[in-house]
Amino acid sequence: MKEAVFLIKTRDRKGLLASISDYFFRHNLNIIQCRQYSDLREGIYFMRIRLDLSDLAVTHKALEDGFGQFAAANDLEWNVFYSENKQKVAIMVSRTSHCLYDLLVNAEEGDLDCEIPLVISNHPMLEKVADKFKVPFYCFPVIPETKAEQEKQVIQLLKKHHIDLVVMARYMQILSEDFIAAYPGKIINIHHAFLPAFQGGNPYERAWERGVKMIGATAHYATGDLDEGPIIEQDVERITHESDPDDLKRIGKEIERRVLTRAVKAHLEHRVIVNGRRTIVFSK
Amino acid sequence: MKEAVFLIKTRDRKGLLASISDYFFRHNLNIIQCRQYSDLREGIYFMRIRLDLSDLAVTHKALEDGFGQFAAANDLEWNVFYSENKQKVAIMVSRTSHCLYDLLVNAEEGDLDCEIPLVISNHPMLEKVADKFKVPFYCFPVIPETKAEQEKQVIQLLKKHHIDLVVMARYMQILSEDFIAAYPGKIINIHHAFLPAFQGGNPYERAWERGVKMIGATAHYATGDLDEGPIIEQDVERITHESDPDDLKRIGKEIERRVLTRAVKAHLEHRVIVNGRRTIVFSK
Amino acid sequence: MKEAVFLIKTRDRKGLLASISDYFFRHNLNIIQCRQYSDLREGIYFMRIRLDLSDLAVTHKALEDGFGQFAAANDLEWNVFYSENKQKVAIMVSRTSHCLYDLLVNAEEGDLDCEIPLVISNHPMLEKVADKFKVPFYCFPVIPETKAEQEKQVIQLLKKHHIDLVVMARYMQILSEDFIAAYPGKIINIHHAFLPAFQGGNPYERAWERGVKMIGATAHYATGDLDEGPIIEQDVERITHESDPDDLKRIGKEIERRVLTRAVKAHLEHRVIVNGRRTIVFSK
Amino acid sequence: MKEAVFLIKTRDRKGLLASISDYFFRHNLNIIQCRQYSDLREGIYFMRIRLDLSDLAVTHKALEDGFGQFAAANDLEWNVFYSENKQKVAIMVSRTSHCLYDLLVNAEEGDLDCEIPLVISNHPMLEKVADKFKVPFYCFPVIPETKAEQEKQVIQLLKKHHIDLVVMARYMQILSEDFIAAYPGKIINIHHAFLPAFQGGNPYERAWERGVKMIGATAHYATGDLDEGPIIEQDVERITHESDPDDLKRIGKEIERRVLTRAVKAHLEHRVIVNGRRTIVFSK
Repeated sequence: MKEAVFLIKTRDRKGLLASISDYFFRHNLNIIQCRQYSDLREGIYFMRIRLDLSDLAVTHKALEDGFGQFAAANDLEWNVFYSENKQKVAIMVSRTSHCLYDLLVNAEEGDLDCEIPLVISNHPMLEKVADKFKVPFYCFPVIPETKAEQEKQVIQLLKKHHIDLVVMARYMQILSEDFIAAYPGKIINIHHAFLPAFQGGNPYERAWERGVKMIGATAHYATGDLDEGPIIEQDVERITHESDPDDLKRIGKEIERRVLTRAVKAHLEHRVIVNGRRTIVFSK
Repeated sequence: MKEAVFLIKTRDRKGLLASISDYFFRHNLNIIQCRQYSDLREGIYFMRIRLDLSDLAVTHKALEDGFGQFAAANDLEWNVFYSENKQKVAIMVSRTSHCLYDLLVNAEEGDLDCEIPLVISNHPMLEKVADKFKVPFYCFPVIPETKAEQEKQVIQLLKKHHIDLVVMARYMQILSEDFIAAYPGKIINIHHAFLPAFQGGNPYERAWERGVKMIGATAHYATGDLDEGPIIEQDVERITHESDPDDLKRIGKEIERRVLTRAVKAHLEHRVIVNGRRTIVFSK
Repeated sequence: MKEAVFLIKTRDRKGLLASISDYFFRHNLNIIQCRQYSDLREGIYFMRIRLDLSDLAVTHKALEDGFGQFAAANDLEWNVFYSENKQKVAIMVSRTSHCLYDLLVNAEEGDLDCEIPLVISNHPMLEKVADKFKVPFYCFPVIPETKAEQEKQVIQLLKKHHIDLVVMARYMQILSEDFIAAYPGKIINIHHAFLPAFQGGNPYERAWERGVKMIGATAHYATGDLDEGPIIEQDVERITHESDPDDLKRIGKEIERRVLTRAVKAHLEHRVIVNGRRTIVFSK
Repeated sequence: MKEAVFLIKTRDRKGLLASISDYFFRHNLNIIQCRQYSDLREGIYFMRIRLDLSDLAVTHKALEDGFGQFAAANDLEWNVFYSENKQKVAIMVSRTSHCLYDLLVNAEEGDLDCEIPLVISNHPMLEKVADKFKVPFYCFPVIPETKAEQEKQVIQLLKKHHIDLVVMARYMQILSEDFIAAYPGKIINIHHAFLPAFQGGNPYERAWERGVKMIGATAHYATGDLDEGPIIEQDVERITHESDPDDLKRIGKEIERRVLTRAVKAHLEHRVIVNGRRTIVFSK
């Protein structure tokens, strides 16, 4: 089924649902699903509308021009995404393979609806994993002195492949603000802790030292502030005093990969809207 | 804030959202929240609309007459509930107090928005609990020979108090079909197992014998078929081989009370619609 | 059944299990359960032994003298607790009742094996809850100027009642170091966040602002450093963008009370040993 | 580190811990960890002892002969496993790849300590997955008429490869009693439901029809009774009325693979003892 998803943001006020749904009805566009959320504190209204485009008689451009006029008249910020445009995802990794495997397997099984045209790493180690799935692997080693240059090369490669989303699947480098500015709201990172606890390095070691009874992982959009970006998904598992730091790492792998894959899935399905430091994640 | 909740059910088709939301907009009724669900298998559309009635200029009767005409023209089944009508809940118990306490405490703290005019039991044991909260306690002992008569007395009492919802908070008797027919969709039961596993008696003992690694509880609407009614809420906890049947009972108490209280809360907030053997439980 | 629990701590080395279990066997003391844990990083060995004292032919004093000599010879730190000595628990509260209710109900139902001789508060508000359970309620208002004096009065009262454990069940005051020093390892606090995230005040508000997708609660021993004491138990619940700070408070109440009650239960059953900033919590 | 694990089962009685730990101490065998469990209902004592064999001065045979005499004198059933003997695991699959991937990836990453010398299927479809990990893939199609013959061939292959454990990773065939008898307690199956709910076929479809609010998966030892074998591990995820049967299948995949991998890990680490219909699963 051909579908489109409209994401809409505007000042909260009376009659929005009626007027927007009426617009689509008058244009004979069937709403499959409509989700709304009002942030009452800030007075902002968010909407996600899934349309069935099977009977669409006009071009995408005409659809967008039409809705664009309506949106301008009603002061709506909006985006539209078409299901037929498969998104291109670049995965960045360093040395641990569990998240990379999970993304590749889910894409192969059809549970993540995307193409993965390349894997990028600062280490050669995971080439064999990318090879298994016949995905080109690019290695760009990085040391502090070459970081600016390395990032430039990576961005060039991403641009060349028309990448829609960058997934940092345990890429153990901090991206510069310039890099992030090149893909605003388009870079998802997995942090191996239940943020905001244990920001920064060695979270499992620090979790062990603090003696927590559960550990977690957090998928968030990368921003200029390390581990401070808007959170998309989190999950935890129970541990005991018997779990040593190596156990935490192992248990954490299972959490990290499922949290990251769920976050990437939500993003690819256009279910996430960023609102300052918070995200709205509409259910499927 | 004065509010109303409309629950609507109809055959799924194009334009429903537009026409219904337009109706409320034209009558100057502000939609605070609108949830929808389409059961694609059966082609049924469900909607829950919360209205702000602060500015309502007409009577409830006029509101209902107006919407009633619109609904008839559009073939909608519907109900409306007003926040100012506090619901009356009767709690039925036998000998264990944890669910009873949880309901009474949550009502006292304002987390369950209801009145509890009476507690009914087939044993005298929990009178002291009802007394603590100054809730009248009625004891109707029951043996097989007197069951029909006992139920008649209980129903009379419920009717006299204009009870809206009956909560079986570990009432260890099976209600007759006549009793259930007197309160269709208005009786919530807690079963101390993760249904459909361990229907019937002694679920914790049987769970132990089967060697399951998690136990659960299930809140459901009571129907003529024991433990077969539509499920509202379930939850589980992990156990180990070391948990003996007494441990399961104790762990289960914590699950039962939170599952039951959540289900009662969802019902009182008019977030539940029954659809055959399934329930739609809209999020808050 | 009369039982004793020995908690033992010593330098980890070969033969400990054999020699300690042999000691009890030679003295005809039946081991019902034996738990061990070796902290390999610090080389410390911990043991919890439950003995059946049904056949004990000597006095407690003789038992302790005998084991004391063995322990001295083997360089063991140890404590013993007898099941027949019911522990006395003081509950400290401010204005929210959910944790207080949970402790009182669990004690009444026999799931917490203790006496609760008094409830202490800095506000008069929860007197009605203590009254329901016929537990004396003491109100000691506190302002910064009177804090030292207030604590002195509270400690006097605790001493007079031979209190074994102080439970801060949402007591919204920070205890002084002197107070804590009077009950080292004997004060359990509930913090309404998943520590170390959101230490300090207003954790639900801050959790909302940060946009986390799960919230939690943490029970820990109170130490001089606020919210830094050894953690006994934690748990979490999933939330969504739709949960506003009031929802978080309500959802949090359910987490707080079960986390606190589990921690108190573990402490009362002598299953917790503090090891620096970490706790060993043996399973039942 | 070279290690051995002893699993011991005997009639529960006084002094067992002292005498067994003393045996190992007298023979200068350092106990790294000792777990015990007493089934008080049936009066059976279970023990798992991990020994450090770094300083072992005798042969495995001598070790076993020595302990065997002690065990005979004390009426102990026992087994010993050496960490240096890497176990050989055969994976059986049909058409879905998620469990197969998870086992292969975990073995590659070292989180499952085993060799996987072959994958067996009744369909050719997953050959490409086995190929990625360079694991030989054997396809034995099966129809009712050829089932006995097919199983004979499979067993021959398993025997030839000295397989220690057979993992049915969504192998959609029921093994005959003869097959199971050839590998008693050595075949682990994953059932895609929270047993004992939804035994048999199409569990996700049936879970949807019943309207449950959580779905689960169960790993158990295969026995002659379908889905009735001793349970090793279970887990669940929350669903809503919006999750259709396809969603349940997708959500279920994540549960199935982690439940199966955890169960296989527990078995490979000799942490599981079967006791009738129940399992003892010692923690790590």
